[in-house]
Amino acid sequence: MAAAHENPDQLVTSSDPEHPANLIPSLCAKFWTLGWVTGTGGGCSIRDDNLVYIAPSGVQKELMKPADIYVLSLKDQEPSLKQRTYLRSPPLYKPSQCTPLFLAAFTRRGAGCCIHTHSHWAVLVTLLLEAKGSSVFEINNIEQIKGFGKGMGKVGNLGYHDTLRIPVIENTPHEEDLTEYLEAAMEEYPDTYAVLVRRHGVYVWGDNVHKAKTQCESLDYLFQLAVEMHQLGLPWISSIAQIGPQR
Amino acid sequence: MAAAHENPDQLVTSSDPEHPANLIPSLCAKFWTLGWVTGTGGGCSIRDDNLVYIAPSGVQKELMKPADIYVLSLKDQEPSLKQRTYLRSPPLYKPSQCTPLFLAAFTRRGAGCCIHTHSHWAVLVTLLLEAKGSSVFEINNIEQIKGFGKGMGKVGNLGYHDTLRIPVIENTPHEEDLTEYLEAAMEEYPDTYAVLVRRHGVYVWGDNVHKAKTQCESLDYLFQLAVEMHQLGLPWISSIAQIGPQR
Amino acid sequence: MAAAHENPDQLVTSSDPEHPANLIPSLCAKFWTLGWVTGTGGGCSIRDDNLVYIAPSGVQKELMKPADIYVLSLKDQEPSLKQRTYLRSPPLYKPSQCTPLFLAAFTRRGAGCCIHTHSHWAVLVTLLLEAKGSSVFEINNIEQIKGFGKGMGKVGNLGYHDTLRIPVIENTPHEEDLTEYLEAAMEEYPDTYAVLVRRHGVYVWGDNVHKAKTQCESLDYLFQLAVEMHQLGLPWISSIAQIGPQR
Amino acid sequence: MAAAHENPDQLVTSSDPEHPANLIPSLCAKFWTLGWVTGTGGGCSIRDDNLVYIAPSGVQKELMKPADIYVLSLKDQEPSLKQRTYLRSPPLYKPSQCTPLFLAAFTRRGAGCCIHTHSHWAVLVTLLLEAKGSSVFEINNIEQIKGFGKGMGKVGNLGYHDTLRIPVIENTPHEEDLTEYLEAAMEEYPDTYAVLVRRHGVYVWGDNVHKAKTQCESLDYLFQLAVEMHQLGLPWISSIAQIGPQR
Repeated sequence: MAAAHENPDQLVTSSDPEHPANLIPSLCAKFWTLGWVTGTGGGCSIRDDNLVYIAPSGVQKELMKPADIYVLSLKDQEPSLKQRTYLRSPPLYKPSQCTPLFLAAFTRRGAGCCIHTHSHWAVLVTLLLEAKGSSVFEINNIEQIKGFGKGMGKVGNLGYHDTLRIPVIENTPHEEDLTEYLEAAMEEYPDTYAVLVRRHGVYVWGDNVHKAKTQCESLDYLFQLAVEMHQLGLPWISSIAQIGPQR
Repeated sequence: MAAAHENPDQLVTSSDPEHPANLIPSLCAKFWTLGWVTGTGGGCSIRDDNLVYIAPSGVQKELMKPADIYVLSLKDQEPSLKQRTYLRSPPLYKPSQCTPLFLAAFTRRGAGCCIHTHSHWAVLVTLLLEAKGSSVFEINNIEQIKGFGKGMGKVGNLGYHDTLRIPVIENTPHEEDLTEYLEAAMEEYPDTYAVLVRRHGVYVWGDNVHKAKTQCESLDYLFQLAVEMHQLGLPWISSIAQIGPQR
Repeated sequence: MAAAHENPDQLVTSSDPEHPANLIPSLCAKFWTLGWVTGTGGGCSIRDDNLVYIAPSGVQKELMKPADIYVLSLKDQEPSLKQRTYLRSPPLYKPSQCTPLFLAAFTRRGAGCCIHTHSHWAVLVTLLLEAKGSSVFEINNIEQIKGFGKGMGKVGNLGYHDTLRIPVIENTPHEEDLTEYLEAAMEEYPDTYAVLVRRHGVYVWGDNVHKAKTQCESLDYLFQLAVEMHQLGLPWISSIAQIGPQR
Repeated sequence: MAAAHENPDQLVTSSDPEHPANLIPSLCAKFWTLGWVTGTGGGCSIRDDNLVYIAPSGVQKELMKPADIYVLSLKDQEPSLKQRTYLRSPPLYKPSQCTPLFLAAFTRRGAGCCIHTHSHWAVLVTLLLEAKGSSVFEINNIEQIKGFGKGMGKVGNLGYHDTLRIPVIENTPHEEDLTEYLEAAMEEYPDTYAVLVRRHGVYVWGDNVHKAKTQCESLDYLFQLAVEMHQLGLPWISSIAQIGPQR
């Protein structure tokens, strides 16, 4: 790390495609094709031990380069998250307003990666829930639910008959002000790997890049399915008798 | 095969893009763009004579590599499919829970390839059928129906006026427990090349990779059309007088 | 041509990306991504003077190669289109059942290219028209209508306030039997560049590849818009007073 | 510029991917995949100081090349925009009918880039507004609204609770006749960065390519969301109490 401090650009320079500074741009380019990070919205952050790599604010996500990435150390941060010290800042950008939300996933949930999308499926789900006065998305008896872990520190994934619950927090004018509400939702739903933000999008995390990305994909699939089920008059929660052997 | 046993990695090493170990990753990458294998869901298996190549469990399907592929021999398998011996196992993965279902297509229908998708069109069709208490998808008088063979051992494809019937089995908490229901559906619908799984997805097979893939595409097209027809109040089964010459 | 007859493969061998044998595969790969030629459905043919290049039957359209292309000469054809002589036939395929329909566009409308899609937007439009007993798609007052020529031998394109009319013919069990109905629709609607086929798809042609392809795109756009307008309760035909200068 | 006049092709020849003559084709290829410039519809223009680069009329947008680009100087133009002098004209094309509309964005709003799409989401929004007799699209309380600047010469972007207003002008048979109505809408809505054209599409501009492109993406996202909200019976304008700290 000493060398990195001497030349911060080394923190984002690697020939390994799995290096966070290379992974974030390639992931964001993929997310752009999925409509998750349209118009510079959304973002992605990866934690490698104490180092955190973050996409900057206001960048076209499909065009991002490793040189655009911010790097900070979790060790250097003040208890108040408002003041942040960066090991490496790209010259042309501003830090992402999502930064304290990503840090919450890393410090409070031990996540290795956190993805924020503006997927319109996520937004529509929050609008449908708002119309019935609800602040939690619930769905069960769909195979894709098995794409989610049972919760931090628990072994294995949810089962087909389990109910996936994703809390919804209200949006704030300034994204960083979401942090306290996100953290409160983490406390209230300790097993969740995602928090919906009303009229805004979703934050999804995981123990590592693989889990964050595949949980984010599975969740977007379920949000799309839920909207389509609603349009077809089909309920999200059903009561189905289990078949097959008990285990 | 002796050489292959001595070095199992040779079973998945080939410069031929048509080799199963190369085809499965390229097919799965294509399926990912179609939304069929989101979030590590779904899968694909190819049979070459007695050798069966299978994508592993829990892999990001658009990133799969030949080295990730499992290989087993149909000859080596015990009558009880629960115990399986692999000629080649990738170091980092677990075998797919879809394996006994793929094997059912190979051993009971002589299929050369079997594809499993979580396409949300397939899931929506099973939900619409559930709402009316049905366990079979039926559609007729749509040109794309001609993309399906008449059935194992029969010559030629379905006609425009024929009714395509795809049975639906109920989902089980553990995917491998679907096997007996899939096999029962194969018995009840001996001509089918696909089985829908309620709230889960679809299994589609064919005599070879070409037929499995194009039948899977045609079926997904019909599922999408069926959902859209339902939204527009149009029935899936119609009575239309044949025009043109009889043959 | 003499040399070509001596070695028919020369008819489909060129380093020019604009050569029909290269253009058909690249166009079909693009059409596959648009969902127009799913599951080997649909096709494309280009005429260069008297030579006609045709994609074969049953090929995966996104994987087609120049060596897969059939070539025939309009001069060699018998008046009865049932008997056709090919200058060049690929070894592994069968001729497309669309061939007589493509030839109708070339011989009766002087088209240079004809595209056949199974676009589900086209199919849905024919289903919506069927439900109200109609055999012609009509839409006006949409800018994209200006993407269509006024008709064979006429100068210029349709205007914004003009009504685009696309006839619908009923589907037949055998695609080649559509030919007489397609030709009848061409007679009844002499200015049309496209014919819808009920529950099947659409044939679109143009004076050259550029016009056929862009008219096909514009038409698919209008079909999609028309289905969405129907879902939103908006009529396809409207009465709007012209603003701006008369010319 | 003297050298450029001597050889106008130098105006569109550069190895810099950020040169307008290279950017317009790469942007238009991307827009084609988004369905914004289907069937030669839509277009894009970039201003670099007094030089204006414009995509030609009637070109397939995903196939455009730098050599297809028109170049004109704002200095050379007559007060009447009907007569235009081009520094460089490609041999095979006609100037875009969008030209005077692009010039209005450059001269009246100081824009550096203007994008015109035929996005069917934009068209559907204008149709929904027409059905209720409205000529302005309004939406609030959606995070993506923050993707828009407050207006020419104003610092910063709209807030989450602000209402985004995009005026709608009626379509004219000839696109260039839209100019006076576009300019009138700019006067009536001085802070807008976009104008919808009824049954046609949208014009979106920005201070530079980055802003025009990301505002266009954000707007298309909002149009799609608005149509889907309408289908789900959700209003575009809502009254939501602000949470989080006031600033």
